[in-house]
Amino acid sequence: MLNFSSDYTNGAHPEVLRRLVETNDEVLTTYGSDVYTESAKVKIRAACGAPEADIYFLAGGTQTNLTVISGMLGLCGAAVAAETGHIALHEAGAIEYTGHKVLTVPHRDGKITAEALEACLRGFYADDNHTHMPYPGLVYISHPTEYGTLYAKAELEALRAVCDAYDIPLFLDGARLGYGLASRQTDVSLSDIAALCDVFYIGGTKVGALCGEAVVFPRGNAPRHFFTIVKQHGALLAKGRLCGVQFDALFTDDLYLRISRHAIDCAERLKAILRGKGYRFFMETATNQQFVVLENAQMARLCEQVAFGYWEPFDEAHTVVRFATSWSTREEELAALAEIL
Amino acid sequence: MLNFSSDYTNGAHPEVLRRLVETNDEVLTTYGSDVYTESAKVKIRAACGAPEADIYFLAGGTQTNLTVISGMLGLCGAAVAAETGHIALHEAGAIEYTGHKVLTVPHRDGKITAEALEACLRGFYADDNHTHMPYPGLVYISHPTEYGTLYAKAELEALRAVCDAYDIPLFLDGARLGYGLASRQTDVSLSDIAALCDVFYIGGTKVGALCGEAVVFPRGNAPRHFFTIVKQHGALLAKGRLCGVQFDALFTDDLYLRISRHAIDCAERLKAILRGKGYRFFMETATNQQFVVLENAQMARLCEQVAFGYWEPFDEAHTVVRFATSWSTREEELAALAEIL
Amino acid sequence: MLNFSSDYTNGAHPEVLRRLVETNDEVLTTYGSDVYTESAKVKIRAACGAPEADIYFLAGGTQTNLTVISGMLGLCGAAVAAETGHIALHEAGAIEYTGHKVLTVPHRDGKITAEALEACLRGFYADDNHTHMPYPGLVYISHPTEYGTLYAKAELEALRAVCDAYDIPLFLDGARLGYGLASRQTDVSLSDIAALCDVFYIGGTKVGALCGEAVVFPRGNAPRHFFTIVKQHGALLAKGRLCGVQFDALFTDDLYLRISRHAIDCAERLKAILRGKGYRFFMETATNQQFVVLENAQMARLCEQVAFGYWEPFDEAHTVVRFATSWSTREEELAALAEIL
Amino acid sequence: MLNFSSDYTNGAHPEVLRRLVETNDEVLTTYGSDVYTESAKVKIRAACGAPEADIYFLAGGTQTNLTVISGMLGLCGAAVAAETGHIALHEAGAIEYTGHKVLTVPHRDGKITAEALEACLRGFYADDNHTHMPYPGLVYISHPTEYGTLYAKAELEALRAVCDAYDIPLFLDGARLGYGLASRQTDVSLSDIAALCDVFYIGGTKVGALCGEAVVFPRGNAPRHFFTIVKQHGALLAKGRLCGVQFDALFTDDLYLRISRHAIDCAERLKAILRGKGYRFFMETATNQQFVVLENAQMARLCEQVAFGYWEPFDEAHTVVRFATSWSTREEELAALAEIL
Repeated sequence: MLNFSSDYTNGAHPEVLRRLVETNDEVLTTYGSDVYTESAKVKIRAACGAPEADIYFLAGGTQTNLTVISGMLGLCGAAVAAETGHIALHEAGAIEYTGHKVLTVPHRDGKITAEALEACLRGFYADDNHTHMPYPGLVYISHPTEYGTLYAKAELEALRAVCDAYDIPLFLDGARLGYGLASRQTDVSLSDIAALCDVFYIGGTKVGALCGEAVVFPRGNAPRHFFTIVKQHGALLAKGRLCGVQFDALFTDDLYLRISRHAIDCAERLKAILRGKGYRFFMETATNQQFVVLENAQMARLCEQVAFGYWEPFDEAHTVVRFATSWSTREEELAALAEIL
Repeated sequence: MLNFSSDYTNGAHPEVLRRLVETNDEVLTTYGSDVYTESAKVKIRAACGAPEADIYFLAGGTQTNLTVISGMLGLCGAAVAAETGHIALHEAGAIEYTGHKVLTVPHRDGKITAEALEACLRGFYADDNHTHMPYPGLVYISHPTEYGTLYAKAELEALRAVCDAYDIPLFLDGARLGYGLASRQTDVSLSDIAALCDVFYIGGTKVGALCGEAVVFPRGNAPRHFFTIVKQHGALLAKGRLCGVQFDALFTDDLYLRISRHAIDCAERLKAILRGKGYRFFMETATNQQFVVLENAQMARLCEQVAFGYWEPFDEAHTVVRFATSWSTREEELAALAEIL
Repeated sequence: MLNFSSDYTNGAHPEVLRRLVETNDEVLTTYGSDVYTESAKVKIRAACGAPEADIYFLAGGTQTNLTVISGMLGLCGAAVAAETGHIALHEAGAIEYTGHKVLTVPHRDGKITAEALEACLRGFYADDNHTHMPYPGLVYISHPTEYGTLYAKAELEALRAVCDAYDIPLFLDGARLGYGLASRQTDVSLSDIAALCDVFYIGGTKVGALCGEAVVFPRGNAPRHFFTIVKQHGALLAKGRLCGVQFDALFTDDLYLRISRHAIDCAERLKAILRGKGYRFFMETATNQQFVVLENAQMARLCEQVAFGYWEPFDEAHTVVRFATSWSTREEELAALAEIL
Repeated sequence: MLNFSSDYTNGAHPEVLRRLVETNDEVLTTYGSDVYTESAKVKIRAACGAPEADIYFLAGGTQTNLTVISGMLGLCGAAVAAETGHIALHEAGAIEYTGHKVLTVPHRDGKITAEALEACLRGFYADDNHTHMPYPGLVYISHPTEYGTLYAKAELEALRAVCDAYDIPLFLDGARLGYGLASRQTDVSLSDIAALCDVFYIGGTKVGALCGEAVVFPRGNAPRHFFTIVKQHGALLAKGRLCGVQFDALFTDDLYLRISRHAIDCAERLKAILRGKGYRFFMETATNQQFVVLENAQMARLCEQVAFGYWEPFDEAHTVVRFATSWSTREEELAALAEIL
């Protein structure tokens, strides 16, 4: 069956896998102290234009979100997120489990606008009862968002300005960052993100790795004891090489961007097909995820030939579904999809 | 200055105070094992028609909410509350601090309708991703609500039916329970609450005590180790007598209801005054809290002569304020207020 | 029956109770913003010689320990305590519930020596694996200790020096502080404690109040958002007056010290009686708690006429028990005890 | 340089790696729903003789310990561990971070004896104050222990009997389980462990995998919502195949046991070398870790040619070090080591 259900249904990119195989027999030190992890850090710092960056490699997205947010927030601090944010919806209450509330603000296409953020923060401090409430202590955004949309550089700058005005750190969840950076419609580079965020991560799991997210504190601003915090949250891999080697490969010869661009090329082709067939977009994005409204009977028929992601009900008779491309999507799969649709 | 700002600006009801004074020199055992605590439990069980009830006395409302919810919920469980619920807004993230999400549902006059609850629960289990989400593990309602409104018995029964259908416990925050029970427009008795809820508390702090809330598990259904859980949450008073004596007094000769009725009589008088003077109600309730919309300049003027509660902005030019009566409101205060308004 | 079981079996000191009664009808603001709370703070700052002190009133000891420790510690920080420390043994895991380990060090008569502390800290940082361990983030001592013993000023200074060398805050649990300050064998004043500790509390529950502990951050060094943290931990009393009035009374005309001195006088008398009758001391202290080794059959006989505290088994045939005096101990009780022993 | 520092300095066993490579291009479902994860579960159930077992794959040891313990324990429950237990010492306070105390008991060669456990539990319930203490809610043992020692079957049965008597679940940390099962001096099989424990895990990270631990609830007794709990603790891998494929390989044709046996053969050879050269054993074990006491100057010299694990100071002049073999140890390494020693 054709598969456009998500961007993590394949193993590793061949080049990433090749490096795992090549280094497999080497004796390496543990817990992220090995040479490949170090090399990956050097390359990521360079790619980010952030020579002072503290970098940590964790295994997955929810783990990274909870460890970073728990590490950054003070005791009564809350994470401000879009109501559609992954931490607000689909992480099993992991943030709350670390003791922190997720304060949601209305989204626009999955994004937080500077206006919405400012309104939230202003409203909070204007409230006579705000000392009886968890204070907004960190802003969480995702880029691409859960809807595949992207912040423009000006939007990020506006958020940054609000964060500065209220002295709140900005955290960018880049679980699919590659697909944002490689988009044809973005003006945001990795250096921009490093310059504008207090912490962010470069997603590996969904962009060519078997697992792994690279957390970047661009100005050497990791919380004190962050290594121990990672361990405390169960997020320290004994064989740190597993992430180190993979990210070293991903950041060699621009592999991360190159394979992301492939996914974007496929997504553009996919959009053309969907448009050509008259499908109705719920969210037509500049990244690797496209959201389409299907009539329910049609959805049931398609299901038999192609796997896609069920997203949410649209109305009684229709459903929003997601088609995702990835670094592993093949031309013939798109051609076959074109036949089916 | 006149004071209608809240129902906890005075000390204890004279009768409650008298009993504290009378018993002061007695040597009593500690941590709630004393004879007055035991006597209070016996009287509360009788008042609730719940001879098997487990009863615990805690010091305050937020403490009670966090201890009960933490004690009742499983690891990934979330508390379902109205978006206006106290635990969702004004408890400093205390529930999240215990590791649990507060899932909010839309409110109607501060209440959760059975329909809204059912929609929330049905929607949850219909969501393909629900195993990636904290599950609804307890329903939190307040009676009176944060807006002074009351559930009708039929409404509670409908909520109970939904809770039964989904096997979720129902927790009623009765911080102001007396003012609900004594309302002229309620058909809900203490026995009804004991019959319909899995756990609830009878508020003392706002109804005549210096501090104290009586948590009732009506069918002897306290979570295992609940005494230790109370201690673990810092909620166990060494001199348990402090709550025991007060609740023993409040449940002797119907004092709790009698003093609540006084507050209701005052509230009815207050409503008549407000209505007579043409004030615009934001929420005209059957309990001791009345919410009025004031023009901002008018609010500033009134502020100089009478204390009331600032609630929330209504629009640019108006504000919602709260006038609260209590067991301690005096006739002459109402008369003076009538002069001022 | 005679009662020497503990120092919290009576209500409030008459003077404290009198002030609760006198102020009962006053309308006061809430959550600790009232005039009596403010007045109590002024008096405590003066008594401590700490004009900049931040002061908060909480209801009980375990609550205070968990709120202060949780508020002071960073994410991976552990509280260092004597293995006999209250937080290590008898607080239902409340510290762990806030996410922090209690690291125990060997005790000497219930105390931590500077040597033991230094050895613990030096050992920690000397351990190659220390980044895989929770770091010592706060030192917890009690004064008087759980065994009624006291730190000499030189001992506190030595602890302070170690804390300074390792940049760790020092927290003193003063649940029974009055009985330490009033001891005939102490050279430690309240000002000394304020000068040497980063945070401490002045116990009320066991020294004349119905409830209440005054937390003092002597150099205005309360953690950011501490008011909200108190609320988040369920420790904020709506009627802050309850603690405010009591501490205002306790710190008027030296009441706190005077009533503590009474307990000490009684304890000295008690010791003389025990010594005179040939009882064997397990711990003969300079404060209000005396620990005696009883033969088990003797213990069973005494039990029938006098209440004392069972402490721990001594050997197969003997048990350590505690006799405690307090502000409320009466001459005739001591005389009666002398008859019985 | 020769390397005997630990058993996780190499990548994956070639056969495990081969299967990762072979399956890499397959499109597989996510979050552990894939066919290889399912196949691994079937094989592990068979190997355990536990057809009803619930099985979950997590990435690492600390993560597994904290997720399982948090999932199994009630609110005030503590994990009972040897004072040398990994969770008590080297997991950065991860268990406490989940809100639970680690109660330590004295160890014998890294093990908990049934007597020590029984004494701990009996002592707890005999203590009048036990409701003020976290209750023992789970027993944690490791097999092999942190010192490489093994429980005899009779010892496990005796622990089980105590657990049954007190109705406490028994959790076995099998981070190095293979090296225990393959020992020449064990009478404990995987089926025995499945029969005697309530939950245990089969370690992959240290026995041939890049990462991964297989948690087994042998009687289908996983806590409710355990999948969500895993997610909540950040321990759910999006590409569940990463663990699934590896464990499927490890449990095909007895690979897990075969490679473990190789490590044991190497360890026996290592012991012979050490013995032959007159080294003094601190702990001579039947598994893959051997602990030797080195004079400090000798240690410094050896350090230059061979990597080993620094364990703990023995006395002023000596240090305990660890030599570990693994599935990846080669004959020529042992020969070279024999030359050096």
